[in-house]
Amino acid sequence: MSAAELQGWFTEKVEDKGVAFSLKLGEHVHGETTPYQRIDIYSTASFGYLMAIDGCTMVSSRDNFFYHEMMAHPALNSHPAPRRVAVIGGGDCGTLNEVLKHPQVERAVQIEIDERVTRLAERYFPELCARNGDPRAELVFGDGIAWIKSAPPASLDVIVVDSTDPVGPAEGLFGRRFYADCLCALDGGGLLVQQSESPLLHLDLIVEMHRFMRESGFAHTRLLHFPQPVYPSGWWSATLAQKTPGPLTARIDEAAIAKLQTRYYCAATHGAAFALPPFVAGAVARPE
Amino acid sequence: MSAAELQGWFTEKVEDKGVAFSLKLGEHVHGETTPYQRIDIYSTASFGYLMAIDGCTMVSSRDNFFYHEMMAHPALNSHPAPRRVAVIGGGDCGTLNEVLKHPQVERAVQIEIDERVTRLAERYFPELCARNGDPRAELVFGDGIAWIKSAPPASLDVIVVDSTDPVGPAEGLFGRRFYADCLCALDGGGLLVQQSESPLLHLDLIVEMHRFMRESGFAHTRLLHFPQPVYPSGWWSATLAQKTPGPLTARIDEAAIAKLQTRYYCAATHGAAFALPPFVAGAVARPE
Repeated sequence: MSAAELQGWFTEKVEDKGVAFSLKLGEHVHGETTPYQRIDIYSTASFGYLMAIDGCTMVSSRDNFFYHEMMAHPALNSHPAPRRVAVIGGGDCGTLNEVLKHPQVERAVQIEIDERVTRLAERYFPELCARNGDPRAELVFGDGIAWIKSAPPASLDVIVVDSTDPVGPAEGLFGRRFYADCLCALDGGGLLVQQSESPLLHLDLIVEMHRFMRESGFAHTRLLHFPQPVYPSGWWSATLAQKTPGPLTARIDEAAIAKLQTRYYCAATHGAAFALPPFVAGAVARPE
Repeated sequence: MSAAELQGWFTEKVEDKGVAFSLKLGEHVHGETTPYQRIDIYSTASFGYLMAIDGCTMVSSRDNFFYHEMMAHPALNSHPAPRRVAVIGGGDCGTLNEVLKHPQVERAVQIEIDERVTRLAERYFPELCARNGDPRAELVFGDGIAWIKSAPPASLDVIVVDSTDPVGPAEGLFGRRFYADCLCALDGGGLLVQQSESPLLHLDLIVEMHRFMRESGFAHTRLLHFPQPVYPSGWWSATLAQKTPGPLTARIDEAAIAKLQTRYYCAATHGAAFALPPFVAGAVARPE
């Protein structure tokens, strides 16, 4: 990057989108280069700890709840009986932590390629790792694409793809071959949910993801959106794909939702997340 | 500001919140200091033109639609017959433009303190000024606080306060005296809607605004929220105050809404905007 940096701030620049977001530091408390990526941990002035991977913000103590709650609960509360869950990526364990809040879940496997992400999360984001010792949890360190490919057919109810952006190690997670393997690994009624970037900045990618998922055999795809201040544009999305046709029916049990102890997710924001603005709805609508 | 700037980028730093947002430039196409404030216009790499006031992003060509639509339509579609509307501030005319899309509106007065904001909007954001020549529109350049104070009682159906942050010239727009004057100027069933900053970064301010509005005699207050990428945190809100008690009933007429030709606002996002996450709902709930 040729531009001067903001001294005393961590800045993620998205050059091709022309936007940058910065958090005031704090200090650089840890940095290492793993076989997969560069990981840095900073303390910030107002967002707690920040983990950055290859210069991109991954998770902050203060605002990760938006993302982790919205990656887990809309999907799990849209499946009639989410017993068997896999989280692909998600090494900070925040999504796994939300998944394990659901009493119906009998087994939740997290498949993260870079064990160092998890080890650093345990140290700097222990609140996200609070349920790693849950007997239903299993932490696998390996290739999520290969894991899904070798998963027994119909062995999963929900697959959550909680990855970095679709470049580098995560690129294969946004392709038809991976989606076809997910489809096979899911049982009837199964759901795939994947982080799908900013509806403002990455609408082309979202449209392509939906197309690839449908071309890979998923019966229906839906977008959900939510605030995520530390990610580019502050507005983020996830894409939910249904293995089998039919309406997506939310299980909105107010008492059960209250027990999740969430800060962004609730019955009202569950519905709100699926309310698409016209410029997005027009783009992701299924072609007739 | 002591930190080095990002060369070739416009950066708004919110030092006390520890966040900054930057847009890649483009060039500085205009700058002037008016009796009220510093105004700069930039061309950006991917957000069209940017107007900054006193170093804060006010409006970009690309993403102002979120804010302007959500300042106008939820309030106007919550009033049974919004005939007489005042916009306080809003000198870029984007909110006025959305207000004038409603055929029920008979008169819409914009009271902006700094005429230069409007003159520069006419030049760099002509799409926001497209309805300035509408015979129902009236552009007043003067003090919005004084204008509301001298407005005949019960002469307005909706007041939209589209101001800068609550410092400097806009500070008086966030106080009990102004709210009491708004209450008096509103007719029975009247609605006040005011931009109320970021639910993540400024929740204390939001709580105080709601309290001040209720202490000034408004029967009920509600928060609505929406994405706004160029504002701090990318997540913004407006506060809606009802003069008279009773439920707030949305006029959701799909055909009428389609005619608004909006990009973010629609029947679905109208409802979604009022869906509050638990951490916000808990803070703004009316004390018993």
